[in-house]
Amino acid sequence: MFRLPQYSPPDFSDPRFAQAPLVTFREVRKAGVAPEGYHATSVFPEYFHVAPGRWEILRESRMDCVVVQRPDGRLDVVEFRRLQPGDRVAVGRRENAEEGIFVHAEAFQGMSGTGDKFAFRTRLTRETSFSIDYDEFYDLLVHERNHGTIVWVLGPAVVFDQDARSAFSSLIRRGYVHALLAGNALATHDLEGALFGTALGQEIYSKRSAPLGHYHHLDAINRLRELGSIEEAMQRGVVTDGVMHAAVTQGIPVVLAGSIRDDGPLPGVIADVYEAQDRMRDQVRRATTVVALATQLHAIATGNMAPSYRVLDDGTVRPVYFYSVDMSEFAVQKLANRGSLTARSILTNVQDFMVTVERGLRRRETNEEIA
Amino acid sequence: MFRLPQYSPPDFSDPRFAQAPLVTFREVRKAGVAPEGYHATSVFPEYFHVAPGRWEILRESRMDCVVVQRPDGRLDVVEFRRLQPGDRVAVGRRENAEEGIFVHAEAFQGMSGTGDKFAFRTRLTRETSFSIDYDEFYDLLVHERNHGTIVWVLGPAVVFDQDARSAFSSLIRRGYVHALLAGNALATHDLEGALFGTALGQEIYSKRSAPLGHYHHLDAINRLRELGSIEEAMQRGVVTDGVMHAAVTQGIPVVLAGSIRDDGPLPGVIADVYEAQDRMRDQVRRATTVVALATQLHAIATGNMAPSYRVLDDGTVRPVYFYSVDMSEFAVQKLANRGSLTARSILTNVQDFMVTVERGLRRRETNEEIA
Amino acid sequence: MFRLPQYSPPDFSDPRFAQAPLVTFREVRKAGVAPEGYHATSVFPEYFHVAPGRWEILRESRMDCVVVQRPDGRLDVVEFRRLQPGDRVAVGRRENAEEGIFVHAEAFQGMSGTGDKFAFRTRLTRETSFSIDYDEFYDLLVHERNHGTIVWVLGPAVVFDQDARSAFSSLIRRGYVHALLAGNALATHDLEGALFGTALGQEIYSKRSAPLGHYHHLDAINRLRELGSIEEAMQRGVVTDGVMHAAVTQGIPVVLAGSIRDDGPLPGVIADVYEAQDRMRDQVRRATTVVALATQLHAIATGNMAPSYRVLDDGTVRPVYFYSVDMSEFAVQKLANRGSLTARSILTNVQDFMVTVERGLRRRETNEEIA
Amino acid sequence: MFRLPQYSPPDFSDPRFAQAPLVTFREVRKAGVAPEGYHATSVFPEYFHVAPGRWEILRESRMDCVVVQRPDGRLDVVEFRRLQPGDRVAVGRRENAEEGIFVHAEAFQGMSGTGDKFAFRTRLTRETSFSIDYDEFYDLLVHERNHGTIVWVLGPAVVFDQDARSAFSSLIRRGYVHALLAGNALATHDLEGALFGTALGQEIYSKRSAPLGHYHHLDAINRLRELGSIEEAMQRGVVTDGVMHAAVTQGIPVVLAGSIRDDGPLPGVIADVYEAQDRMRDQVRRATTVVALATQLHAIATGNMAPSYRVLDDGTVRPVYFYSVDMSEFAVQKLANRGSLTARSILTNVQDFMVTVERGLRRRETNEEIA
Repeated sequence: MFRLPQYSPPDFSDPRFAQAPLVTFREVRKAGVAPEGYHATSVFPEYFHVAPGRWEILRESRMDCVVVQRPDGRLDVVEFRRLQPGDRVAVGRRENAEEGIFVHAEAFQGMSGTGDKFAFRTRLTRETSFSIDYDEFYDLLVHERNHGTIVWVLGPAVVFDQDARSAFSSLIRRGYVHALLAGNALATHDLEGALFGTALGQEIYSKRSAPLGHYHHLDAINRLRELGSIEEAMQRGVVTDGVMHAAVTQGIPVVLAGSIRDDGPLPGVIADVYEAQDRMRDQVRRATTVVALATQLHAIATGNMAPSYRVLDDGTVRPVYFYSVDMSEFAVQKLANRGSLTARSILTNVQDFMVTVERGLRRRETNEEIA
Repeated sequence: MFRLPQYSPPDFSDPRFAQAPLVTFREVRKAGVAPEGYHATSVFPEYFHVAPGRWEILRESRMDCVVVQRPDGRLDVVEFRRLQPGDRVAVGRRENAEEGIFVHAEAFQGMSGTGDKFAFRTRLTRETSFSIDYDEFYDLLVHERNHGTIVWVLGPAVVFDQDARSAFSSLIRRGYVHALLAGNALATHDLEGALFGTALGQEIYSKRSAPLGHYHHLDAINRLRELGSIEEAMQRGVVTDGVMHAAVTQGIPVVLAGSIRDDGPLPGVIADVYEAQDRMRDQVRRATTVVALATQLHAIATGNMAPSYRVLDDGTVRPVYFYSVDMSEFAVQKLANRGSLTARSILTNVQDFMVTVERGLRRRETNEEIA
Repeated sequence: MFRLPQYSPPDFSDPRFAQAPLVTFREVRKAGVAPEGYHATSVFPEYFHVAPGRWEILRESRMDCVVVQRPDGRLDVVEFRRLQPGDRVAVGRRENAEEGIFVHAEAFQGMSGTGDKFAFRTRLTRETSFSIDYDEFYDLLVHERNHGTIVWVLGPAVVFDQDARSAFSSLIRRGYVHALLAGNALATHDLEGALFGTALGQEIYSKRSAPLGHYHHLDAINRLRELGSIEEAMQRGVVTDGVMHAAVTQGIPVVLAGSIRDDGPLPGVIADVYEAQDRMRDQVRRATTVVALATQLHAIATGNMAPSYRVLDDGTVRPVYFYSVDMSEFAVQKLANRGSLTARSILTNVQDFMVTVERGLRRRETNEEIA
Repeated sequence: MFRLPQYSPPDFSDPRFAQAPLVTFREVRKAGVAPEGYHATSVFPEYFHVAPGRWEILRESRMDCVVVQRPDGRLDVVEFRRLQPGDRVAVGRRENAEEGIFVHAEAFQGMSGTGDKFAFRTRLTRETSFSIDYDEFYDLLVHERNHGTIVWVLGPAVVFDQDARSAFSSLIRRGYVHALLAGNALATHDLEGALFGTALGQEIYSKRSAPLGHYHHLDAINRLRELGSIEEAMQRGVVTDGVMHAAVTQGIPVVLAGSIRDDGPLPGVIADVYEAQDRMRDQVRRATTVVALATQLHAIATGNMAPSYRVLDDGTVRPVYFYSVDMSEFAVQKLANRGSLTARSILTNVQDFMVTVERGLRRRETNEEIA
């Protein structure tokens, strides 16, 4: 049975905390520019000495941002571009309490999820064994379905394959997907599948080239632009299956971020990448597990805005899991290298991953029902 | 000596042209939506039968766009998102003149640049020999420096390495770079190098980790945001070397497109990706050679908007060369697969590529001076 | 239901055959050296004009060998190193019957196995859809289990993962494996698993490092060398599970070829690589399907000695299927590029592949029982 | 100026050495089988307590072997397969002197070659900067040319490219190559280049396909087999350029190890892989620098038999450098992960590497002459 690793808060009775100064704040003078000496956040839990003896933890943190103390005292983790003149930004680059800031890097115990202390320290390669990772992933997803928030980040490869597309749609319908972050390509190829049964002009299962199939992705985009939205396309019965259909049907928030590679774009794709970051982070703020599949751009973007922990409403601190799945050692290592035990990577084709996970979860569910 | 391959126009005396109907245009009803049956452009030269016996070639074409006939008769290659109600869009999906549209896929002879007919048809791998490709690339660049327009598309890897960064800066200064397309990361790491001598906190040559070096890229961005622009940073003597410095000094247009991975961003980075596409295409319109290094996102984006030919002011048609250089067979094949002989790929580390090319061109120049 | 594609023999009534000369043979003078002008074999069916009007097909062919006519008239496909003085070797490099040799490259119809004519001509990448390939692979294996001979070529990755190791052992027990070609590493890591429950010192499921675990693979080899053979180790109850155990139990021939990377080696590993080639080819001669997983060395070696067809005892000609499964586009393309439609490749982690295939076959079997 | 890092011998005055027992030896009973509890060697300097107060260092060590004390007291590092009954093998698996064995893992200071202490601890990727690695490599090679022994391990990619093939031939002629380890493929493609100017049938520079070019590599092998040796081919003027020609001309020892992928093989290729290991190790025993290019099989094989240090004739201990150069992160990490600071890796195309190194060394030589 799955158990979350326990959070070990810092021991604030330690003299280094008692003797620490309060954290200093400096005002922003120019919009979007942090004051000198600003403190930049990490993925780890961070505590700020805001009043004598009172160390406050950051909520909804993320990497490489600054900390603003709002007039009501609340600490906000803010991107540089969102700084406004007058904002009070925490300064200090020592992380050991000496400047009133403490970065708590070793916060969780038994991080493996099986109660053990071993860490994934060996270099990850295509020859690494992944059986346990799959099993732990199933346990985690089953737990998170009811007690957490699972955010998926998807590259287009997932919808190029019929079985993978069906498997992910099924995961959505069965409650394992609480938000979906992707780009124009994922949605386009999924909708091409819904409209024409093809992906980039090839029949999605048989791979036969359809006549004039190279027009299909443009036709799909054009049709959707004409209809105005995916919801409209569904209401008119134009789109009746696939990932986007399942997401809309289930009321899952979908954030489609634009990129310079886009054709179209589809209606709903966010043209301004920093607005897209904000919308993505809105979803990541409440995430307890993030799963990024076959997309270097979106995976790294999401990794940058995902902390390794989340403070629940009742004040409990729990880990945020971050899975990346990709064929490329290069892509996966960029993410594995976050310095956090909550980051896991599986090197494989995401089509197989998706199909395997769908079956694994189905088996797990059946066992639960029987038990 | 370098000679451009000769353009072979279609033989319009052929009966299939004489008997062909005029191309049909249909009006756009809703902004951003093409009329049914629209014709989508390819990378090849395309001719439109606009008046009896008159076949007009597309200028400044690109892939996957539509053709709008302006009131003055001019044919414009337009992205779907730029369509306005009333625009007259060419329709027809046959490419053999039967609908008044002719796609001229085999337009150039002796495409290798050495006057030969062989083609790079074998699959490209890391074991492919590239000696001739380097030599042809030097010949091409030397020619284009004076007679063409060379657009470079750069991923950040080029500025992570001291020798590569110097080599590319030198190419800029020596006239081989007429426009630079990149993202926030390229500029950030280049400017981190200029301000701190590091890349991601490591000394750029020795790779020693600098104290608090992980702050450097954020500090560089913050400093530039404070100063307001790279030009201002140069005027104040804050930035005195590197790729951005060379580009600004030489007056080279630089387009920095935003992405959801960005920290910052730096001043000048374009937040709206479709505006960024337009600005990139402004440069690509006049390109005669495009070189894309170590960036899948920007390389594919640029590949989509680069045709295989350009119509010069005097009406001459010449090829547009498209080089992609990357470590990954996957990345390179996405580009190699454009169906055009003008696309060339070299599989290597771009640092080595950059250093090798700089030396090769220097040698070539010396030989020219001597001769 | 699975049906083998039909063989289309050449139309020998065509005048080019009637008018063709008999094939010429020249005698070998020096052992291991072919006479000038020798004909080298391909993977395709080849016919030799041995007597007026009599075109004989090569049996048990392979690539890059020569054809020797034995005293009894039989045509033998022979490696250069096995040539003996006096051997009569076919000469002629034209493949169109003009020298009495005909290479029949387009021999099979409906090669896809589903009765269709489409071909897998598009470049294979990690984004290619593989659903149909899995389904066709299941159909093929179920057919071959009873009517063919399935030779597996395995790299060590298959036994590094507990689920994959179990899955493949299960395939052996259920009759899907008729021969196993591998190296010292596959057997060593499999036996390390059997003796210590580890692979390279990590527990095979949990990945925990065992104390002094780096001794395990050497200890496994040393123990097996002491016992003298895997069979002996099984009789003494030292080895009770895994791939080698299943293979020996089922009486499957196993060829372990030595390489310069080997520790040990294990007893039974063949030190002489050319003897190993002969032993491997003994198995491949009767193969109707070859499946190569995660091993570039053994996969290419086997690919070189596997023809695209087999002549059955009753004279029928059927295709030989060749599947390669690997994470690396580079490795897979080396094999995909055999110029034969019977070569299929799947880009994925072989652990997932193995587990997925085992489940797919189990489902297929269940359906058969029900039906 | 290049200086070798200083060796720091263990401080044998430390009580743990004084109090340590003598190392125990146990006799081999069965040929090729080590006695229980055998000690397996590492790449590091290891000391054995052979007489009270006398700790003897292993000479010509390598990984994963056992230590045999010869009748004359000499300690010999021996492969399991070479053990003979009666051989006295060191036992003990603790490495801290407690069993009379001490593994000295941190033996060298200023390992970077520039006198600094920093280590290459960050993960190596294609984006890692390599400028300093090249410079240090030049310094090292210039030093080793006169004061060391440089062993090169080559995959065939080096001879597929004209410039790379010339560059390496030039390195041989200029004294930077003291032994060459490779396989049948390297020699075959190099000799195909010498005989036909092609590699796998394509002209080595222009990449034009030669008529019947697919026969060339077989013809090259057959011709060499007829002549009996590469030396004979040179004497008859059949082979007049390339890597093999340069090596034979300069009297460089060449070890060609056979593999199951081989066509032919060429005369001189060693069929027995364990004999090939012995012949390779003969060269590696005296190596002070090993450079492995684009060959996973040979690179790992050589890595296994290369220690991180060498004891010179005068008793001085110096490091052995091990460079691996490959396009694949996977390949390179297998070697980088040796736990030794003397292992360096460069991720690039070996063609570029070869050409760059040749030029770098030439420049370095010119500077020396001037200075």
